[in-house]
Amino acid sequence: MSATIEVNTSYPEQKLDSQHYPLLSGIDTPDDLRKLSPDKLPDVCSEIRDFLIHSLSKNPGHFASSMGAVELTVALHYVFNTPYDRIVWDVGHQAYGHKLLTGRAPLFYSNRRLGGLSGFPSPAESNYDTFSAGHASNSISAALGMSVAAALNNDSPQRHVIAVIGDASISGGLAFEGLNNAANAKNNLLIILNDNDMSIDRNVGSLNSYLAHITTSKSYNTVRYRVYRFLKKLHLINDKSRGRILRFNNSLKSFFTKQQNIFEGLNIRYFGPFEGHDLPRIIRVLNDIKEMSGPRILHLRTTKGKGFKAAEDDPAYWHAPGKFNPANGQIIKDSATVKPQKYQEVFGETLVKLAKSNPDIVAITAAMPSGTSVSMMAKEFPERTFDVGISEGHAVTFAGGLAKDGKRPFVAIYSSFLQRGYDHLIHDVALQGLPVVFCIDRAGLVGEDGATHHGVFDLGYLSSIPGFTIASPRNESYLRHLMYTAQLPDVKSPWAIRYPRGYGEDCSTDDEMHSIPTGKGEKLRDGKDVSVLSLGPICSEVTDAIAKAAEQGVDTGHYDMIFLKPLDDEILTEVAQAGRPIITVEDASVKGGLGSAVIEWLSEHGYHIPVTRIGVPDKFVPQGTVAELRELCGMNAAAISEAIINAKQSDL
Amino acid sequence: MSATIEVNTSYPEQKLDSQHYPLLSGIDTPDDLRKLSPDKLPDVCSEIRDFLIHSLSKNPGHFASSMGAVELTVALHYVFNTPYDRIVWDVGHQAYGHKLLTGRAPLFYSNRRLGGLSGFPSPAESNYDTFSAGHASNSISAALGMSVAAALNNDSPQRHVIAVIGDASISGGLAFEGLNNAANAKNNLLIILNDNDMSIDRNVGSLNSYLAHITTSKSYNTVRYRVYRFLKKLHLINDKSRGRILRFNNSLKSFFTKQQNIFEGLNIRYFGPFEGHDLPRIIRVLNDIKEMSGPRILHLRTTKGKGFKAAEDDPAYWHAPGKFNPANGQIIKDSATVKPQKYQEVFGETLVKLAKSNPDIVAITAAMPSGTSVSMMAKEFPERTFDVGISEGHAVTFAGGLAKDGKRPFVAIYSSFLQRGYDHLIHDVALQGLPVVFCIDRAGLVGEDGATHHGVFDLGYLSSIPGFTIASPRNESYLRHLMYTAQLPDVKSPWAIRYPRGYGEDCSTDDEMHSIPTGKGEKLRDGKDVSVLSLGPICSEVTDAIAKAAEQGVDTGHYDMIFLKPLDDEILTEVAQAGRPIITVEDASVKGGLGSAVIEWLSEHGYHIPVTRIGVPDKFVPQGTVAELRELCGMNAAAISEAIINAKQSDL
Repeated sequence: MSATIEVNTSYPEQKLDSQHYPLLSGIDTPDDLRKLSPDKLPDVCSEIRDFLIHSLSKNPGHFASSMGAVELTVALHYVFNTPYDRIVWDVGHQAYGHKLLTGRAPLFYSNRRLGGLSGFPSPAESNYDTFSAGHASNSISAALGMSVAAALNNDSPQRHVIAVIGDASISGGLAFEGLNNAANAKNNLLIILNDNDMSIDRNVGSLNSYLAHITTSKSYNTVRYRVYRFLKKLHLINDKSRGRILRFNNSLKSFFTKQQNIFEGLNIRYFGPFEGHDLPRIIRVLNDIKEMSGPRILHLRTTKGKGFKAAEDDPAYWHAPGKFNPANGQIIKDSATVKPQKYQEVFGETLVKLAKSNPDIVAITAAMPSGTSVSMMAKEFPERTFDVGISEGHAVTFAGGLAKDGKRPFVAIYSSFLQRGYDHLIHDVALQGLPVVFCIDRAGLVGEDGATHHGVFDLGYLSSIPGFTIASPRNESYLRHLMYTAQLPDVKSPWAIRYPRGYGEDCSTDDEMHSIPTGKGEKLRDGKDVSVLSLGPICSEVTDAIAKAAEQGVDTGHYDMIFLKPLDDEILTEVAQAGRPIITVEDASVKGGLGSAVIEWLSEHGYHIPVTRIGVPDKFVPQGTVAELRELCGMNAAAISEAIINAKQSDL
Repeated sequence: MSATIEVNTSYPEQKLDSQHYPLLSGIDTPDDLRKLSPDKLPDVCSEIRDFLIHSLSKNPGHFASSMGAVELTVALHYVFNTPYDRIVWDVGHQAYGHKLLTGRAPLFYSNRRLGGLSGFPSPAESNYDTFSAGHASNSISAALGMSVAAALNNDSPQRHVIAVIGDASISGGLAFEGLNNAANAKNNLLIILNDNDMSIDRNVGSLNSYLAHITTSKSYNTVRYRVYRFLKKLHLINDKSRGRILRFNNSLKSFFTKQQNIFEGLNIRYFGPFEGHDLPRIIRVLNDIKEMSGPRILHLRTTKGKGFKAAEDDPAYWHAPGKFNPANGQIIKDSATVKPQKYQEVFGETLVKLAKSNPDIVAITAAMPSGTSVSMMAKEFPERTFDVGISEGHAVTFAGGLAKDGKRPFVAIYSSFLQRGYDHLIHDVALQGLPVVFCIDRAGLVGEDGATHHGVFDLGYLSSIPGFTIASPRNESYLRHLMYTAQLPDVKSPWAIRYPRGYGEDCSTDDEMHSIPTGKGEKLRDGKDVSVLSLGPICSEVTDAIAKAAEQGVDTGHYDMIFLKPLDDEILTEVAQAGRPIITVEDASVKGGLGSAVIEWLSEHGYHIPVTRIGVPDKFVPQGTVAELRELCGMNAAAISEAIINAKQSDL
């Protein structure tokens, strides 16, 4: 039903070698797992880890999170009747083990590839994947919906619904809203807090400190749980008498710790923390709390990267390490060629450079210091750098407050995650004309992370906000100039600078930074047949396309607009008056981006010129390499060149 | 700096009568207030209440919240050095008293009028208004930004920053993100929790229950505070020794209550709860905690509507009561004419009717049961109705979970507040093609609530989401048919139905509901000169405009598109082939709405036809009556008629 572009690539199943994987090779569904005796389960865990290490060492993906969740995953499928029971994974970096146990091991080699398995849980892929997982903190709300639906459908209490959320995700505002609502409707939601004390990077925030603190009262929780089991066994209590148990718990708790638990303050029964790699124990705990009614939270302490030393030692690096040697954890560098700098590196270096000369600059990241390279600023100016955790909304509003009192915040957030701060962009920044600089990372098609991560809506959602300046550099050199321009004192309103994931164009980044006139693009090439207007680094595909079209005798003009807003009237007037067919090219949805803006401008100014809009179609785009996806979307040099040639022909 | 449409209307100051208002009339700025002796302050409070009662009884506005915050407001301006010290009001329903004390009493009669005072704090209006306040829960993040800026600017500790947030607002995810980050950077943020145990309606959520529970440990907090003051007076402790005080507090606390405070769990020092109408005491407390370093929260219990019996008795009704008799609180009904039903009433009645025949229907509101009329559903089907509090993001994702397991959620949220759920619309609903029905209330220009509340971005932000069906009824009868259509079993994807605040067109709502073909509009009128395409209830302005234009001999065709997405190809082909100038009319931003879609369609299909787009320009729109604002934006019948006539003339 989802409006996603279809892909025809498919992959043959690769049966697991039953010698290497004597247990895992026999598990086609969790039913097979549930037939195993409990003493076999640690071996299942070992096989899963082995499989992940070998598979991911060759075909890179998210590593450390899934390694840390192996016991939890096995326990969940062992105790619960999936897929009738619902597991909702948050983000889903941790869900590879879940994929292996639910019939997808033979296809796991296609993970994150075009037409292959999704790197995240995906309902379109399997009915064991209950909900989209790519943006953090949504699991509690989604699972609460399912749990309430079960109650309304009279599927409850038979149907169990379990949200599995990490300690970084649970600090997001959405997760808090879910927690705050969990006790308000009839439901039996079980929340599993998979607490590895890590975000992708180091975790931040007071809740995180609080979770660390909870563990100090482990003794109490352990005692409480033991007493509870003991009484239950003696049939002295049962789960109907929830009020009684809670009172019992509370009295025991205050006796041992004199502290109230935040979750119990929110009327959610809390159990834990327990060691998350102690499989027999997790299974016992899950069986014990399974049939309790009302919302509950089970707090498990896990180790990110568990079972692979290199990853345990540096879990941030091993979040998604690329290729490695499975024997010793040595990283395999793609050493073939010297690569240009990544946009992220240029961003980080430039930020530090600007911050040195402009003391008002501060930097904000939402849990992605390494991913965005805000870490470089943090190293140089720790007191002017803020990692707010998974809190994109707060990041934007906090920046508004800083800007209001004279600071010039650079807020680096991935395009698709900034969607969480959309209202805040309008209400807390643009409406007040505050000069916040949004550095929108991972803009455009991002590749293997797929539909949840493509940063293709930003041009649309930004361009209708009054007063926003929206720019995109065609290469890493222009990224520097745009960042320089955005922090100048005469800028009195918000800016967005969008740039992609990955490598630049290998242009010099040593030259002096200079300001770029706001709303002014550049003519890169004259041409008498067709005019191409492009925005951002997809410029290079256009350059290639123009060369190809030239082979067919088509002479193409090319303009880098640099700014989506304000649009360059001068360039538009020039191409409109020339009267040649226009092609717009952008690495974003064609709804609301450059193509739309150009068509609207032409209509407003009374020009009737054919325009071909090239960009991401009005569909969700699946995963694949960026090159594959550009082909799929008709956005690569070949497609652009074809469009140029067609435009010329229909103009004849 | 903000990109807001300018208004030329201005109002002469009306000096306060010094007999009625002996103190208030002498307060031009808070400096004047601070010159008064403390014993005069209760009289200032009385005068403020008197002034509010008399002013708002004639010129309606938000009443009960400000009445409950009078002592708090006086205390804040008395203790703190505003505007050097920053007060950040959350939402700002409570900020009328603040306006009166900051030089705006003589203009208060213009409150919420075109060109008059804003009904919310507005930085454009006064430098005492530090930040936009219209969408809940932003104050902590914004104030934290200011407090951190003060520290970085070396304005700290001299500069105090105070966020004033209600108990409903603090349950929003953004507020939690702010709290979770408050202790992470060097700052002296003071958060005042103005706890009146109310949202606009009854408050919901576990945090709210928790706050109520806190009051039971009042004895401890009182003791703690007294002991603290006592020790401070004896110079046995000072505010530098924060760690020591906290340890002292904690030991005292566990001694008295054996409970841990959620806020202190988040490393924010907690003080309270205190009676929020005990002015001398609030002043004493504020003076005591003023110079402490680090983030602190002061919990005040207030009574919404305080000082006006009718409002105290029914604070939900008196949130914004309209005109009333200041002597006895009798509501003055606008009895002149019998009005048609409001869209909201039709929505509520229809929802109940549909829910009776379709057991899968459930309803969700985010703290607006009365405002949206979801209350009608709550009355009939309480177990199928969910008020999630100020949690728009959760509302959307929760609906996704419900839809995933077979429910058909109707989510009624105001257009501008749904901006908070933008990512959730994409990631948690549309990507999975879940059939959630978003009933987008307060769509279009809303009138007196102004820029923060106009629901003008929804067409833009929705139309670029793949797979969304977007519709708007031209009258309340079509609202019923669209709601009926959206819940039919063959609908397998999300729908948005947008409709405005207020009265319908007085058409019958008794007829049988019927399904409307998805993506099909209706021709209302043939015409040989110009074609007008409209979307939504602004249809009636077009009808009037066409009649006016007819007087000038212009014959205008009129089509109600009903759907923005999918667009009606048949209608567009018809008007395109006819070749007459096209005018599009919508009650939304022209960026990304109907006009944009029509221009794009024409361009894609190779038609070169002049299009005039009528709608909200790419600017923020201030407050005023809807009629005034439509005039300001060139969207009323007169402007449309002029556009029609111009279009015909330029076509000749």
